[in-house]
Amino acid sequence: MSIQHVLLGVLEARPMSGYELTQLFSASTRWVWSAPQSQIYPALKTMEAAGLITGEQLQTGGRVRTVYSITEPGLAELRQWIGTAHPSPPSRDALDVQALYFDLVEPAVAKRVLTEFIAEQQAAAEHATAHSARLLAKDTELLRERLSHRPAAEHDRMARLKAHVFAGQAAVAEARIAWAREGLRLLDEA
Amino acid sequence: MSIQHVLLGVLEARPMSGYELTQLFSASTRWVWSAPQSQIYPALKTMEAAGLITGEQLQTGGRVRTVYSITEPGLAELRQWIGTAHPSPPSRDALDVQALYFDLVEPAVAKRVLTEFIAEQQAAAEHATAHSARLLAKDTELLRERLSHRPAAEHDRMARLKAHVFAGQAAVAEARIAWAREGLRLLDEA
Repeated sequence: MSIQHVLLGVLEARPMSGYELTQLFSASTRWVWSAPQSQIYPALKTMEAAGLITGEQLQTGGRVRTVYSITEPGLAELRQWIGTAHPSPPSRDALDVQALYFDLVEPAVAKRVLTEFIAEQQAAAEHATAHSARLLAKDTELLRERLSHRPAAEHDRMARLKAHVFAGQAAVAEARIAWAREGLRLLDEA
Repeated sequence: MSIQHVLLGVLEARPMSGYELTQLFSASTRWVWSAPQSQIYPALKTMEAAGLITGEQLQTGGRVRTVYSITEPGLAELRQWIGTAHPSPPSRDALDVQALYFDLVEPAVAKRVLTEFIAEQQAAAEHATAHSARLLAKDTELLRERLSHRPAAEHDRMARLKAHVFAGQAAVAEARIAWAREGLRLLDEA
């Protein structure tokens, strides 16, 4: 997995400048992928050198910007990556490690950690559910741009598949919330 | 979050050598945290220099090994970290990105990706469920070592809290499996 495939996927919607891409990633802190600006520009250079994208100098609002488009080899690489099963990365969940040692702190302290986690996951679940609904209604700019160059007969299925990704994120957040609530109950037990 | 807190948590069970720690982390590829050997030794040096652990040269089986124990400041640092709410790291799930673009590949190809993911998550769920049951039964070496220096009145609660962490991992895996199964169904829709 790399930032490159994420960028290829976004550029499949339409050509974008590095600036637009950084705006997109910074605006969506809880999108499927987050990437700092420091990763995006070098990745674009590498991908352009590899022929996966092509840059064009465009004058926009008095400034010259390089706007990148996905190439045929880039689309082929994206499709190849999408169709390959990648093992999930190793587990690195800080809260799981903390919870493993909750017996070392006062119950009230551990409960505060879980309570804050529940609030965080509730916000994440709500955000994911709302985004899923917007995709299902074909009501995001990026999705509309994608649909504009795809046959109308495919639109509903595309929207359902994309909405399903965020419904899944909400479901995972809900599972974590249920787990944390049971943890609050366990911490009260002698 | 850092490997240091994970190591402090493990060393709270009993003093261990760097070798034992690397064995522990490599044996449990699906433990709450995975760490390569290349991270463990430098972390131990840093922690020793910071006074969080203390090393003692011990002769074991004809070899001299440094065995590390957690210090009082180390335990205080561990407790401080356990009791602090840390924001979840940004989302970086490759499958979510892949699934977002499943409309770009043949349904059969996308279904193979989901089917392999389901198998992976089923194995993860089974592993987590089994480990949770072992902890609840106080049937792991590490837990027995921890319990040996804690009052008997606390043992059941400690086992329940630790078992709950892995029950939560199983619940998340089950949520992901349900999501992937719904994905298989959606891919078949026109």
